[in-house]
Amino acid sequence: MSEFSWPVRVYYEDTDAGGVVYYANYLKFMERARTEFLRSLGFEQDELLRQGLIFAVHRAEVDYIKPARFNHALTVTAKISQQKKVSLTFEQEVLNEKGELCSRGKIKIVCLDSESFKPRPIPEVILRTIPNEQ
Amino acid sequence: MSEFSWPVRVYYEDTDAGGVVYYANYLKFMERARTEFLRSLGFEQDELLRQGLIFAVHRAEVDYIKPARFNHALTVTAKISQQKKVSLTFEQEVLNEKGELCSRGKIKIVCLDSESFKPRPIPEVILRTIPNEQ
Amino acid sequence: MSEFSWPVRVYYEDTDAGGVVYYANYLKFMERARTEFLRSLGFEQDELLRQGLIFAVHRAEVDYIKPARFNHALTVTAKISQQKKVSLTFEQEVLNEKGELCSRGKIKIVCLDSESFKPRPIPEVILRTIPNEQ
Amino acid sequence: MSEFSWPVRVYYEDTDAGGVVYYANYLKFMERARTEFLRSLGFEQDELLRQGLIFAVHRAEVDYIKPARFNHALTVTAKISQQKKVSLTFEQEVLNEKGELCSRGKIKIVCLDSESFKPRPIPEVILRTIPNEQ
Repeated sequence: MSEFSWPVRVYYEDTDAGGVVYYANYLKFMERARTEFLRSLGFEQDELLRQGLIFAVHRAEVDYIKPARFNHALTVTAKISQQKKVSLTFEQEVLNEKGELCSRGKIKIVCLDSESFKPRPIPEVILRTIPNEQ
Repeated sequence: MSEFSWPVRVYYEDTDAGGVVYYANYLKFMERARTEFLRSLGFEQDELLRQGLIFAVHRAEVDYIKPARFNHALTVTAKISQQKKVSLTFEQEVLNEKGELCSRGKIKIVCLDSESFKPRPIPEVILRTIPNEQ
Repeated sequence: MSEFSWPVRVYYEDTDAGGVVYYANYLKFMERARTEFLRSLGFEQDELLRQGLIFAVHRAEVDYIKPARFNHALTVTAKISQQKKVSLTFEQEVLNEKGELCSRGKIKIVCLDSESFKPRPIPEVILRTIPNEQ
Repeated sequence: MSEFSWPVRVYYEDTDAGGVVYYANYLKFMERARTEFLRSLGFEQDELLRQGLIFAVHRAEVDYIKPARFNHALTVTAKISQQKKVSLTFEQEVLNEKGELCSRGKIKIVCLDSESFKPRPIPEVILRTIPNEQ
């Protein structure tokens, strides 16, 4: 199966005075799932950083559908919908305990040189390992 | 001119180990500018909340163009590109001290009942006050 | 055993441009461990909130000993060192993968009425359940 | 008078589902005031970082007295209560619009080499410039 999922618990730190998860924090949840997805494939981002590579977000589109609340146990999914030489596009969902969709994101990340922040090809070993649905 | 701008200083809290502003934090900066824009028109969101109204983000699109860094003095703009009965769409930019574009966002907010989180018409007094470019 | 421990992974969101975990974020990690400690005893804070009770931090003392870094897998401990009618004091540690102490905290929380923010006795059922070392 | 003060507005990003400022975020507010205090004396921390120096928090003690709420306009103070060869201790307060004390902190920072994170003497030019009350 090519979809990865990762559990995220909502703590006070994630919520705001509206009683729900603060909108920017869904981006944190989605990045946790992307990081764990890469880790599950054998890639550690601190190791990539030592090799002079950093993945940076180039574009994020997020739809907010149903608010997630304090103490909820969420599931965050990640799958790669597009794979290019220097970029990967993830489609991600944040679901609550009932399986209802709270938020949906399309996140394009690019591989950069960690010093110059110039684009660099994604290492072949990563591209070969990533589940490819295209 | 109908564009509002707001200064934002980058502190350590805003950055990450890549040495740049963490991608989710641009959404915080943009919300600060939207809040101050509404305040400049005479609308305080805690007052709206006491009236049972909350503005929630419905969709966010963010492009990351040039990384902003620790200690930079940024300018965040906000203008309304679309105005509907229950929603407002903002176009926003984050610029560095040289006037270079770091990030650009299109943020659609909806007016909700603060208890039920059901859509509610934006109060007439707000719609009448907002600079309208459509 | 009376000490609770909880794993915390360091993501980009937790770090700053110094390359290490941002100092305020250790407080987030410690709160996660306290929340999970209470959950492990059967107490859910959203349920307490519906009963009109909220635990708020009254005082925090944190020592920063060794920086934790991006991608580290930390362990956060929590034990109760003092238990009073309206307050609990936690002693907590944040350890890295080598078992080295990164940070140590002493956090006093008080039980408050969630509306008035006035102190309220901690429910008997909680006090009876909490491991007591005094 | 040697006390520095800095205005901080409370946005949604700063609050939690309890309706008040999240406890870790007072540490962000206090750091903003320390940063602006150093800037007011002519020291820019990104410049210090380029010189290989970083100020890191060694110990933080924070008392939470009265909750600050969404949209409040706070004042954060900073003064140096102790000055040593490699460390500075700040005493800081967070006050609301009525001048009521929301939070009080005692924050000890140390000067470190930004690579090795080993202590380094605070540059003489900084020590000479800092208002000294001891």
